[in-house]
Amino acid sequence: RIVRIALEILESEIRARDLAREHVLITAGATREEIDPVRFISNRSSGRMGFALAEAARARGAQVTVIAGMTTAPEPYGVELVRVCSAEEMLRAVLERLPHATAFIAAAAVADYRPATRQAQKIKKTGARLTLELEPTPDILATVAARKHESLLVVGFAAETERVVEHARDKLERKGLDLVVANDVSQKGAGFDSETNIVTLVTRDGEESLPLMTKSEVAHRILDTVARLRKLARG
Amino acid sequence: RIVRIALEILESEIRARDLAREHVLITAGATREEIDPVRFISNRSSGRMGFALAEAARARGAQVTVIAGMTTAPEPYGVELVRVCSAEEMLRAVLERLPHATAFIAAAAVADYRPATRQAQKIKKTGARLTLELEPTPDILATVAARKHESLLVVGFAAETERVVEHARDKLERKGLDLVVANDVSQKGAGFDSETNIVTLVTRDGEESLPLMTKSEVAHRILDTVARLRKLARG
Repeated sequence: RIVRIALEILESEIRARDLAREHVLITAGATREEIDPVRFISNRSSGRMGFALAEAARARGAQVTVIAGMTTAPEPYGVELVRVCSAEEMLRAVLERLPHATAFIAAAAVADYRPATRQAQKIKKTGARLTLELEPTPDILATVAARKHESLLVVGFAAETERVVEHARDKLERKGLDLVVANDVSQKGAGFDSETNIVTLVTRDGEESLPLMTKSEVAHRILDTVARLRKLARG
Repeated sequence: RIVRIALEILESEIRARDLAREHVLITAGATREEIDPVRFISNRSSGRMGFALAEAARARGAQVTVIAGMTTAPEPYGVELVRVCSAEEMLRAVLERLPHATAFIAAAAVADYRPATRQAQKIKKTGARLTLELEPTPDILATVAARKHESLLVVGFAAETERVVEHARDKLERKGLDLVVANDVSQKGAGFDSETNIVTLVTRDGEESLPLMTKSEVAHRILDTVARLRKLARG
């Protein structure tokens, strides 16, 4: 028993500094795409998963920068926090800091469509229907993966409501990522506005399905995988 | 000087109980209209103005019920708080409580358009544009004003970006309201995500433009007008 406790302490000590050489760039929260000065399109996101990753990475010795949209979760402590509004702004903030990063984790719920034109004045309500033309926003994750320097590890999330792992593996391959954290947001205890999550970690070499756990525990498991992939990359 | 202080204390004492016979029903925050399980349309709103009204009304002796959508401001203390998501849900919650109310203050930023159809599964991103068909949401304020019992005072807000008082007076007459609180949300220090507001109180008998003040002060000025209109109605 003493040996087990000693091993656990040792392991947590090793974990505690295993990211000391990393500079982790994390996106968190939801972007807002304005329709007019009052209305916007957004995604459900508390920012909790991204903030948990930031705190976990800092605790393990990494330098951490968070680019955050709209969040409701308490802000992380001891990390650089940059606020942005739209997907466009988030992309710009990420690219600016990318040269210094060694790992990029895209935990934000980025609106992937935005109004094709933003109205400068509030649209007046009429009784009639209204057609809103939407265009795709820039794909932050794909842009980063395409421009990445050799030592950058890129981690994405896939929030899905059906065929979750299949969509996640497709995303991994299509965008050239190192890890995709897949979660079925239709499950109870997973995803938005929740303290917990149920995820599958999809890498090029396999899949690891995790049980229901807190977002802080999920964060550590993701960072365990980042540390493992770093070792693999070093050979 | 002593007389002035005494008068002020007296006035605040009178104010303190001047709504003791009122049951004030207040809406606050932003509604969310779902596009699919992940995306939604919403409005900018912290809920701060509605919550300030709730606290001010309670302090002046009223019984208070708040129907709130999404908010970021701290919740009010000592009042009944009901949470809802969409405009449809907010309307239902309001109508349920309307028979007991003596004043209705619509401080929520209700989404006035919603997707004509909600997708049960997350819409997959493609490179192409997307057309979103929007339909008007039920008009909570107009519905309440149309169904109001004789002694109900109805107060609306008009957040505008141009010709503010004109739009407010039009709203007052068109919907049959007792008071419209008009604010130009394009002004600095007014509207969303702000601790302060700059408003004009538009009633059937006139207009009162207030300078920049805290939302709590604005709340009291609105309630002063409610108390005045109540006296007028009693004759």
